[in-house]
Amino acid sequence: MAKVGIVMGSDSDMPIMAKAAEVLEQLGIDYEMTIISAHREPDVFFEYAKGAEARGFKVIIAGAGKAAHLPGMCAALFPMPVIGIPMKTSDLGGVDSLYSIVQMPSGIPVATVAINGGANAGILAAKILATSDDEILERLKKYSEDLKDQVVEKDARLQEVGYKAYMEK
Amino acid sequence: MAKVGIVMGSDSDMPIMAKAAEVLEQLGIDYEMTIISAHREPDVFFEYAKGAEARGFKVIIAGAGKAAHLPGMCAALFPMPVIGIPMKTSDLGGVDSLYSIVQMPSGIPVATVAINGGANAGILAAKILATSDDEILERLKKYSEDLKDQVVEKDARLQEVGYKAYMEK
Amino acid sequence: MAKVGIVMGSDSDMPIMAKAAEVLEQLGIDYEMTIISAHREPDVFFEYAKGAEARGFKVIIAGAGKAAHLPGMCAALFPMPVIGIPMKTSDLGGVDSLYSIVQMPSGIPVATVAINGGANAGILAAKILATSDDEILERLKKYSEDLKDQVVEKDARLQEVGYKAYMEK
Amino acid sequence: MAKVGIVMGSDSDMPIMAKAAEVLEQLGIDYEMTIISAHREPDVFFEYAKGAEARGFKVIIAGAGKAAHLPGMCAALFPMPVIGIPMKTSDLGGVDSLYSIVQMPSGIPVATVAINGGANAGILAAKILATSDDEILERLKKYSEDLKDQVVEKDARLQEVGYKAYMEK
Amino acid sequence: MAKVGIVMGSDSDMPIMAKAAEVLEQLGIDYEMTIISAHREPDVFFEYAKGAEARGFKVIIAGAGKAAHLPGMCAALFPMPVIGIPMKTSDLGGVDSLYSIVQMPSGIPVATVAINGGANAGILAAKILATSDDEILERLKKYSEDLKDQVVEKDARLQEVGYKAYMEK
Amino acid sequence: MAKVGIVMGSDSDMPIMAKAAEVLEQLGIDYEMTIISAHREPDVFFEYAKGAEARGFKVIIAGAGKAAHLPGMCAALFPMPVIGIPMKTSDLGGVDSLYSIVQMPSGIPVATVAINGGANAGILAAKILATSDDEILERLKKYSEDLKDQVVEKDARLQEVGYKAYMEK
Amino acid sequence: MAKVGIVMGSDSDMPIMAKAAEVLEQLGIDYEMTIISAHREPDVFFEYAKGAEARGFKVIIAGAGKAAHLPGMCAALFPMPVIGIPMKTSDLGGVDSLYSIVQMPSGIPVATVAINGGANAGILAAKILATSDDEILERLKKYSEDLKDQVVEKDARLQEVGYKAYMEK
Amino acid sequence: MAKVGIVMGSDSDMPIMAKAAEVLEQLGIDYEMTIISAHREPDVFFEYAKGAEARGFKVIIAGAGKAAHLPGMCAALFPMPVIGIPMKTSDLGGVDSLYSIVQMPSGIPVATVAINGGANAGILAAKILATSDDEILERLKKYSEDLKDQVVEKDARLQEVGYKAYMEK
Repeated sequence: MAKVGIVMGSDSDMPIMAKAAEVLEQLGIDYEMTIISAHREPDVFFEYAKGAEARGFKVIIAGAGKAAHLPGMCAALFPMPVIGIPMKTSDLGGVDSLYSIVQMPSGIPVATVAINGGANAGILAAKILATSDDEILERLKKYSEDLKDQVVEKDARLQEVGYKAYMEK
Repeated sequence: MAKVGIVMGSDSDMPIMAKAAEVLEQLGIDYEMTIISAHREPDVFFEYAKGAEARGFKVIIAGAGKAAHLPGMCAALFPMPVIGIPMKTSDLGGVDSLYSIVQMPSGIPVATVAINGGANAGILAAKILATSDDEILERLKKYSEDLKDQVVEKDARLQEVGYKAYMEK
Repeated sequence: MAKVGIVMGSDSDMPIMAKAAEVLEQLGIDYEMTIISAHREPDVFFEYAKGAEARGFKVIIAGAGKAAHLPGMCAALFPMPVIGIPMKTSDLGGVDSLYSIVQMPSGIPVATVAINGGANAGILAAKILATSDDEILERLKKYSEDLKDQVVEKDARLQEVGYKAYMEK
Repeated sequence: MAKVGIVMGSDSDMPIMAKAAEVLEQLGIDYEMTIISAHREPDVFFEYAKGAEARGFKVIIAGAGKAAHLPGMCAALFPMPVIGIPMKTSDLGGVDSLYSIVQMPSGIPVATVAINGGANAGILAAKILATSDDEILERLKKYSEDLKDQVVEKDARLQEVGYKAYMEK
Repeated sequence: MAKVGIVMGSDSDMPIMAKAAEVLEQLGIDYEMTIISAHREPDVFFEYAKGAEARGFKVIIAGAGKAAHLPGMCAALFPMPVIGIPMKTSDLGGVDSLYSIVQMPSGIPVATVAINGGANAGILAAKILATSDDEILERLKKYSEDLKDQVVEKDARLQEVGYKAYMEK
Repeated sequence: MAKVGIVMGSDSDMPIMAKAAEVLEQLGIDYEMTIISAHREPDVFFEYAKGAEARGFKVIIAGAGKAAHLPGMCAALFPMPVIGIPMKTSDLGGVDSLYSIVQMPSGIPVATVAINGGANAGILAAKILATSDDEILERLKKYSEDLKDQVVEKDARLQEVGYKAYMEK
Repeated sequence: MAKVGIVMGSDSDMPIMAKAAEVLEQLGIDYEMTIISAHREPDVFFEYAKGAEARGFKVIIAGAGKAAHLPGMCAALFPMPVIGIPMKTSDLGGVDSLYSIVQMPSGIPVATVAINGGANAGILAAKILATSDDEILERLKKYSEDLKDQVVEKDARLQEVGYKAYMEK
Repeated sequence: MAKVGIVMGSDSDMPIMAKAAEVLEQLGIDYEMTIISAHREPDVFFEYAKGAEARGFKVIIAGAGKAAHLPGMCAALFPMPVIGIPMKTSDLGGVDSLYSIVQMPSGIPVATVAINGGANAGILAAKILATSDDEILERLKKYSEDLKDQVVEKDARLQEVGYKAYMEK
């Protein structure tokens, strides 16, 4: 049974949502990805969000752009955490998406990540599940170690070849 | 049967929404004012928005602040025009409300007025009804004449007393 | 007799205004498209806006960029609804156009849609006409159904092929 | 053993952080509130953040204003969710705090809530714990019901007395 | 015959416009101050702007707030310089007024001064007249000397009493 | 003797400044174009700005980007009008240049035009000279007529071929 | 001989500049405070900035608001570090001052601190002098210890009395 | 022994950081460049920042983008000046990085330069060292002369060939 629902209102958001999915796959967490528009099919959306708990979801990751209502409306209907990903927009850079997602009224929080922060949404979902799952917690610690090792390795290369050679590559 | 629905998510928005009501009263247009939160009572909201056409509404005026989803969700469920009023917010001045209301995706427009533009929302609703109601159209023209007369009168006073005396009053 | 006037100040705005026209064509609504600059030919503009009612227009859709005065000046002269489309600008992303259109003073509303929201302007015009025209209302409901079906279809494909294959296409 | 750590860099943030504490108290969740500055006492901060897991914390709520580093640095050191509250600032309204908290690089998410969103941070912490605690989940559902009832009650009063009397109170 | 027209759309702008008038008085330049709304009485406005040259105006100073069209519409109708003053607004601080005034399309410039920059608009009008009037030029040079002397005097006092005593006064 | 000085701090601004020069050439107004940096050669700059009046300049057009001090420093040293052109910047779109130019303190106005508004700066300079030069005034009126004719012609073509054919070209 | 010059263009900036002075006094560093306007008395300013090195200054702290040119022009004339303090402004919150100070072109840096960051400007000046003065370095370390102790003390009080009592005081 | 530490959190920042290095090389100042992430390897970062004084660093140049904590955390741990470079970001243009770096709380300044201001960071570091090193001071003066000569040369070419030929090259 999938523990994480990934939902987007438009398939143009998929490249960003896919990064959340990839992280969850790396961390061995089941998820379900869906395209549902709160604006274009509000009934379908309502059923989805109200049925999410029964489906076994513990977390929903919702991405949306511009007047981004999807994450907030999920949060109105689903009793566990909703993570919102504000999509970059071509005119306002995503500040419209960000405000529409993060500035939720009292009582209905959305856990907002960075503009286009697909990978971070996946990691945050994992961190939430890790509060009661030691295996996921261990995998997250390992994931962090890997991130650290990548930086260490890059610095080692910089020290070895100098910045001019480093940048030429 | 009321032709205009006025809806707000929180009674803190009432002073602004009241300005829309006052304009409609002046123009002799029936309306119904309601407090319904799309976030706190999504089911009640759904019924409201889906039943609005049957109730006889031709226009909905929806006001909301911050991550303002109410106007956009009305527009997703009601087939006729929805007018959105972005509320001024204490931190971001209302630019959050504005973006959350105006930046709607293709297919689901919200007719957005100025931040805190309660009176203009009422006038816009009247203008919409005036497209098929000559009496309202006449009243709107009269309303515009009155606005003009007020400016003319102010200028006459300025010419009479000069700016220093004018400002002292 | 055309019921909708579409007006722009510069032909560089035409690709966005054309989207409004296309929607109106799909919904079987007559319109007239014109290029008139309130800044460069104020007399021509004045005649246009003042004569719009006599011409049979019920709604004007006006698009403009930067210090976008065209929609607001239409609203000062035409007694029925004016829909404003803020054009994206290369330097400020369109926030200049948006503020210049939406922040109208009390008494003179412009029904503002999203930055570059040409299609939504067309839909909003249709929604306004639908307040007194059941045929247009039915066509709008059908249009909404089509939008919904497109999302349903995309989700079906996602469920079938998975996100990796979906994105490859 | 407290499950939630509440941490702020300055006691000027306490009125907002207190709202998170109050929500946790209402929902029967133990927490520890601390003042620690990542900038003024980095060593103390490091010990706190690194020891948080051993202390039993499942979630950290961190509030900060301006160049708000506290939530992000917590997230760098604590393997479970960190919730960030951007404080309103007197000059930039809190957009500086918001960007400094939400725009985290890939790998280190902070679950960001609205500017001054203290209560929502508490609710989000509860929602996170509710993913593995049915009692908290039930209390959250009850909390949501209460929010709904408050809106219903307000609307009932509006219908009874009308908006003019409502606002006079 | 007055050489400068000062025009505002609303008497709420008068305290700022008065600063322009005061500067012109100090510099011995005749002006006429008028309240005319381009939005509320477009016909009156048109006559004013088109007749301004015949009236002897060499410069128009126009102030407006929010979607501030008055300066730009003056510039569309008057062939000599129009100076625009963006009014501070309570929600957006005046950035809406500023963009609506300064971002004019090619062909129709408005000489924009700072938000609430009434005095500077008066000085700029004088500088424009000074391009062909040596007396005004001399008065402007004297005005600048006075500004300089005020700063010199303040610094002298600071050196004498120190900053603590200086601030106490 | 040139009546207009055109000055820029960096030759990267030349494509925009050239538009001012082209307009002045069209209107038969002599100008001198110079590259001088207030930041990199303050002494050279000081001599230029202080000597501008003696050189016969009636107006200076100054363009600058980012922390754009050139127009304001010209205005501090030259007693007649300074027109400022804020350059578009790659990171902030030119809002930095705009604020640095338009938000001048009381006493030292800069007549600011739109971001990248080179042509408008040239026209504004001509309008300033036209306050005492009837020939330039006539040429400006002719210039405006030409602008109008271009719009009329475009609209005629639109009416003839329709928007689809129009856009194909 | 004073090592730090503190300069402001207007005595309205003195309350913020005074905080820099107070920090320098605490750290035993001599300074000279002056009011000089680059805009209103450019000659006086030039002499000041060019003579600053001969006067013994190692650092200049310059504060300014709106189109804040003072720090940048100091940096154009003084060969050692200039620290810029952007003043909060009543309309734009200080983002105008910030951009005008921080966005300096290549070759002429200004070391910019936070909006209204008077104390931090003083500390930064001390840190610069500490690169070659061990006594100042020791005093700075002591100053940091004191800051730390204040936070520790506040937290101790919070632990003792709880947040409710803490806030009541 | 290197006097300047150059540190970045990600090698994607290297092209900007390299400009600081190049300037330091031109001015004959030793530096060490390192990739260390405060978020991904906080322990490594802590050791680096705490050991920087012992290593002989007098200045640290730190670059970071988005929620840019690296410069501020350096400033919390290193007692001498930290120069922060805000990286341009693809969504918000770098205003997020700028706010996260410049808006530091009282007590912990970061000397912030322009967005992507790598070269200026190098120059500022040199200016700081020049407060106690006459040789560096002389080289900086020579560097400034070279900047000036480049502008003078460009202007000479403009005067010789005119702007049309100048731009063609």
